This record gives sequence, C-alpha cells and structure tokens, in this order.
Amino acid sequence: MVHIQRREVFCAAHRLYNDALSAQENEELFGKCSWEFGHGHNFEVWVTVKGEVNPKTGFVMNLSDLKALMMRFVIDPLDHRHLNLDDTFMKGILPSTENLAIEIWNQLCEPVAEFGSLLHCVRVVETENNAVEYFGA
Amino acid sequence: MVHIQRREVFCAAHRLYNDALSAQENEELFGKCSWEFGHGHNFEVWVTVKGEVNPKTGFVMNLSDLKALMMRFVIDPLDHRHLNLDDTFMKGILPSTENLAIEIWNQLCEPVAEFGSLLHCVRVVETENNAVEYFGA
Amino acid sequence: MVHIQRREVFCAAHRLYNDALSAQENEELFGKCSWEFGHGHNFEVWVTVKGEVNPKTGFVMNLSDLKALMMRFVIDPLDHRHLNLDDTFMKGILPSTENLAIEIWNQLCEPVAEFGSLLHCVRVVETENNAVEYFGA
Amino acid sequence: MVHIQRREVFCAAHRLYNDALSAQENEELFGKCSWEFGHGHNFEVWVTVKGEVNPKTGFVMNLSDLKALMMRFVIDPLDHRHLNLDDTFMKGILPSTENLAIEIWNQLCEPVAEFGSLLHCVRVVETENNAVEYFGA
Amino acid sequence: MVHIQRREVFCAAHRLYNDALSAQENEELFGKCSWEFGHGHNFEVWVTVKGEVNPKTGFVMNLSDLKALMMRFVIDPLDHRHLNLDDTFMKGILPSTENLAIEIWNQLCEPVAEFGSLLHCVRVVETENNAVEYFGA
Amino acid sequence: MVHIQRREVFCAAHRLYNDALSAQENEELFGKCSWEFGHGHNFEVWVTVKGEVNPKTGFVMNLSDLKALMMRFVIDPLDHRHLNLDDTFMKGILPSTENLAIEIWNQLCEPVAEFGSLLHCVRVVETENNAVEYFGA
Repeated sequence: MVHIQRREVFCAAHRLYNDALSAQENEELFGKCSWEFGHGHNFEVWVTVKGEVNPKTGFVMNLSDLKALMMRFVIDPLDHRHLNLDDTFMKGILPSTENLAIEIWNQLCEPVAEFGSLLHCVRVVETENNAVEYFGA
Repeated sequence: MVHIQRREVFCAAHRLYNDALSAQENEELFGKCSWEFGHGHNFEVWVTVKGEVNPKTGFVMNLSDLKALMMRFVIDPLDHRHLNLDDTFMKGILPSTENLAIEIWNQLCEPVAEFGSLLHCVRVVETENNAVEYFGA
Repeated sequence: MVHIQRREVFCAAHRLYNDALSAQENEELFGKCSWEFGHGHNFEVWVTVKGEVNPKTGFVMNLSDLKALMMRFVIDPLDHRHLNLDDTFMKGILPSTENLAIEIWNQLCEPVAEFGSLLHCVRVVETENNAVEYFGA
Repeated sequence: MVHIQRREVFCAAHRLYNDALSAQENEELFGKCSWEFGHGHNFEVWVTVKGEVNPKTGFVMNLSDLKALMMRFVIDPLDHRHLNLDDTFMKGILPSTENLAIEIWNQLCEPVAEFGSLLHCVRVVETENNAVEYFGA
Repeated sequence: MVHIQRREVFCAAHRLYNDALSAQENEELFGKCSWEFGHGHNFEVWVTVKGEVNPKTGFVMNLSDLKALMMRFVIDPLDHRHLNLDDTFMKGILPSTENLAIEIWNQLCEPVAEFGSLLHCVRVVETENNAVEYFGA
Repeated sequence: MVHIQRREVFCAAHRLYNDALSAQENEELFGKCSWEFGHGHNFEVWVTVKGEVNPKTGFVMNLSDLKALMMRFVIDPLDHRHLNLDDTFMKGILPSTENLAIEIWNQLCEPVAEFGSLLHCVRVVETENNAVEYFGA
C-alpha cells in the first residue's frame, strides 16, 4: 500500500454562526469568527489516496485524475464562494474546518473508489496555525 | 540605513465590484472575484521600515513597537472583517490588493514617523501566487 | 473521529550535554550541539487533538481553548528561555527534540482531557530538516 | 515509541515512459511527463524512523547518523542525475514518485535496522502539490 | 507607482555545459551540474510589474492577464521540457539561472508593455537556497 | 546587472542586553529578549551579489564559490554558538538582527569583491515574522 497526496487551494468566505443559538451565545462560542459579514481564508486541501501501485503506470492513481476529481467536486464548487450564503454542498452546514473536511470527504469518497483506490485522509489547512484531518467514519 | 521587516496576518473577506459599472462589466473585469457574497484570504502584511541603527538598542525601531502599530492600525481593524461591508478604513474603497497596500501605507506612515523612522514598503500577499508592494507616492 | 491541529512557535536556547558522561564522550555523541554556551532554534510545536465533532459548535475542541492551553503550559514557560539553565519543566532533562516532545505531551495530556478530547500527537519541528513526533506511551 | 524525521533534497531529471507500451499509450497515460528528453524536480525526501529513546543520549537515533545514511544511500546516488538514464538504483524502474518512495525505502530499511531503529515512513515530495508516502510492504 | 507580483512554477531539466570548452573545463566550472544527462528543478518564476493604479479596477494590471502572459510566453514553452535539448526559447543558450531570468524578461517585456505596464523584475528561484533577479538591461 | 541570491541557515543563541544600562533599563528596552541565559533562533541568511553575467559560465559568480564564502566567513563561525558568549565576530557587539546583518556584510564585502562581484544585500530572517536587510553604508 502506498499513499499519494494532492494539494489544491480555494479562497472562500465563511462565518461561524449557529442559527439555533442566540447572538450572545454565538459571540461567546465563536468570537470574531461569528461576526456578521464573515471573513475568509485561503483553504489548502490535501487529499490522501491509498492503494497498490499499478506496475503498468507506477501509479496508485493518476494524479491528473485525482486533480480532476478535486477540481470538479471541491475546488470549482467552493472557490470564491461564501460557504454560508452561496449555494454549495456546504450550504446549511456550520462551516467549521472540521465540517468542511468531513463534507469534502463525502464529496470525494465514491468518485475515488470508482478509480479503484481508497480515500484515506482529507486535510484542510485554514491558516498556517490551524488544520483538520478526517479519516472517514 | 538598515531595513527592518515585520509580518502580520489577517483573515478577511472581500469582493471586487465597482458600483459605477454594470453587473456585466464587473463580471468581465473581475470574474469570480466579483461574485455577490464575496470570498476571502489569509492576507499577509509585511511592513518595511528604514532608519539608522540606534547604538543604545541595536535597533532601527523596536519590533515590539512596530508590531503594536501594525496591530492597532491594520490587523485589529481588518481581521475577521468583510472589507466591503464592515466599517473599516477600507469601506467605500475598491478592495483590490493594490488599494489595500496603499491604504495600509496611509494608516502606518505617520505613526511610524512619530517613532523617528521611515516607512519604506508595504507588501500584501494575497495568495501564495499574488502579492503587491507599495513604496509611497 | 476528527483530528484538529494547532501550531505555536517558541524561541529557545539549549545544549545537548549529559552530565553523567565525560566532556569527550559528550563531544563524540553530540558534536557541536554539546558546545558550552548552547545554541538555539525557533521550535515549532504542532499539537493534534482528536474527538467527535460537537454538533452545536462544529468543533472537536475550540481552537481558542487549545491555543490557550498551549500558551499556558508550553509556550509561556519555554519561550525565550534556555532549556538547560532556566527553571522550566525541561530543567534537569536532556533537551533533545525527542525529550522535548515527550515532556510537552506530559504537560498537555491532562489539560486536553479535561476538555473531553484526546491528545493524539505532539510534533516538534527543530529546523526545516529535523522533526520529532510523539503519540504517547 | 517516538518518531524522528529528517529531510534531505535532491535535484534530478526523470521521464515517465513505459517501454512495454506504444508511444501513443505513453502519451495518453503520462501526458507531458512522457516527453522525450525528460523534465525535473527538486525532490524532498522525509524519512521517519521510530524507536525507544535512549536515556543516555535522549535520541531514538542520532540524526547525524540518519543524515549520513540518507546521503550515502539516497542523495549522493540520485542528486543531479537523470533517473532513467544514469546508472543509479532507479535504473530500469519506471520513476514515478510511488516507485521512488518504494526504492528509497529498500535502500534505507536495512541500514536503519543496523542502528537498532525501525524505518517507519519514506515521504517523497515532488512538487508543492504532489507527494507520496510509503510505510513498507 | 505600485508593484504587483505573480508567481508560476515550471518543472524542467537542464545541464550546465559550455560546448566551447573541454569536458574537463566543464567539470571544473560546473561540477555535478555538468553531468551528461542533466538534472532538474521545480523553477519558481516571480514576475513584478509596476504602474499606476487604474481607479476603475483598482489594478495596476489585471492579474488574470499577467497570468495568461506568463503561461503563454514562459510556462507553456518550458514546463516539462529539457532546456538544453527541447526546442524552446532557451535552446542554444547556456541555461544558468541568470540566463533563464534574462530570457524570461525578454519574452515578457513587450507583451507586458502592450498592457500599458512596465516589467520591473523577473525572479527565478531554482532551489530553496538559490535565486536570481533581473531588472532589465 | 543581475542579482544572485544564496541562502544558508545557522542556529545560535543570543541575548539582547546592553552592559552600559541597568538591568531595569534592559528589561524595559528588550523585554524577554534580555533574559539572563539567552534564547535562540534558526537564523536564515540571504546574501545578494550583483554583477555582469560571464558569457563563458552564464554566472554572475559561481554559487559554489558564494556558498564557500558564506560557510567560511558566516556559518562556520556562528553556527551552534552563543553570540554573546562565544568568541566570534559578534563578540562584544549587541547582537540585534540589525547588527548581525551589518557584521555579516562586513565579513563578506571584501571576499565577494575579490571574485569581481559586488555585495548588494544581506538579509537576516530571525523568525517567520521578523527580518532585516542591509545594503552597505
């Protein structure tokens, strides 16, 4: 088993605000992340796929295929969007980095499996100091 | 003359949209940067100050003073804000990286001068591929 | 289970020298790391915590809490200190990067558990070429 | 058990081309990576070794020993070479990043074991967007 | 005047060898860079353009235009090529990083001027330790 | 004129303390940088040399020569040393980053000139947030 990793970046706005809570509770829980108009990040997404090396290609999975899946299912939908307001797969989900990693996993898990490989990890780097990793349920 | 440089980071949302133009012109000029709800970045700000080295301290300017100026005049106002919608020094200004660098210069020029040093350059890094430098008028 | 990661940096001096050994043995084992007055590094500390995502917050653990624990138990004690000479939790311990990772784990393990999360990994990056990871005993 | 990691870099040319396939099949599989004269990368190699911490040294394994093994068995043979054409341990092997990681593992596994440590992972970073990890058969 | 900067990366092979000199002289001058089959790098290219900010757009020059020029005149020709052997604008030129920066300047100078801006600097980063900057004749 | 740049790193301890001042004044001026036993950094040194490109080599100056000068005059003397206590060219000089850049310039200026090139800039990066540049008197 070998792990391959591909990185892509998207730039998006988001706001941490739980509509089921009061404004004051949101302020206490999320601080400046809860402010009304949102803020944003350059989100780095690292996807790890594992599998056997195909002797014909030397590849676990062609990185150009993995890149195409990431562009189609993650980057094109989210890039230059507001994760709370735009109509993407994050709409209606509290856009914490944790939930973002889980939902990116959910987008990619089946498409990667159709290539005969296994999705192993989704890593989302929100700032140079914060990151999340999800390895599936 | 020696140059000293200090970096700080803020996370903000913005949208490139000129209200004097039609929606179609904005789309043509700014593409995905013009989308309605905005997107965001981790903006790195590098400030360069120049001056003589004070023999008592070995410093051009104490970096803890420069950091305090950057926090007060740039990072605290802009961090976790939407540059088009929140009430900051960018309000009403098309928030391109160029204009951001110029306005950060305008915020810092006098406060740095009050410390007996000269502001030399403001560098704003918007993504790992894009940056702007402003050296004053 | 989701993993969250937070990075903080501290700047410290240290010296690799085992008092139970002769000067010559120390020189042979540790080379330039054993020199009398010590040297130093910008040490990056990455802490990984794992747990379930709280549906109310979207968080495994609030990163502002994790940051506060890291500042209180690791960064404030060690930053701008000499790990052999100053009175910190490293005093009396051979300050290799391995031992540093283990002792940072020991500082953080219980405080993280009190937040209902599990400490998973402490990573200490000593230089751009050297790092250590500890996952607990 | 503690993990230690050492990074070294080598600069090499390679070409992805399977001699058992036609030129057209190679073009379809490998695209621009198959072009006749090859291209190149700054390959980063991260080696992870695990073991108990020796109380005498505070080390799992002396990083100067690990560095020496990496230089002797990996960097000196591959640096400034063409992986398809020069006479190295990669000669005759399709030089995908996957195969490179596996062969570097094969070079280092026994030499690391002779130091009483266990090779845990070989990570090869081909570009800032692509990497491979191998943990042994 | 504001400076804007755009980064792109290409991966190429090259060899430092002056055909007007003997093999021994090449070995003495260029060492391992002169070896027969070449080696390679991930070359980062930073292009700096300067000009006035257009009040309509907030831009010195639209970065999507600058990116398109860099792709057309630099990255597409050089990416995944061997700078000595493939038929690019570097053919017949000793492909030192200095000459690469100069020739990239020559490719971009006029196309940038056609957009009403001035090419200010071409920076080529060959490895994390080596870089060249060219500011024109 | 072309600029070439070479980076090297050294790891050292230092303390900001002016013996002509009282302990209290030092604490006020330098804060935690003045603490008794010192702290340390991974100091990155970027040296920029400028000159004409030699048509025989394609080089302003052979980077292996520049590297050798940096190792001999800067890195070997300072690496793994305490800048206040060890007997180096920094002994007796308040080891601020500014003074470090100036003294590194003083070490390298003549040796670079002997190769027929001009030292243009010494950049010292103390942390990821702080740097100093010196361009000569």
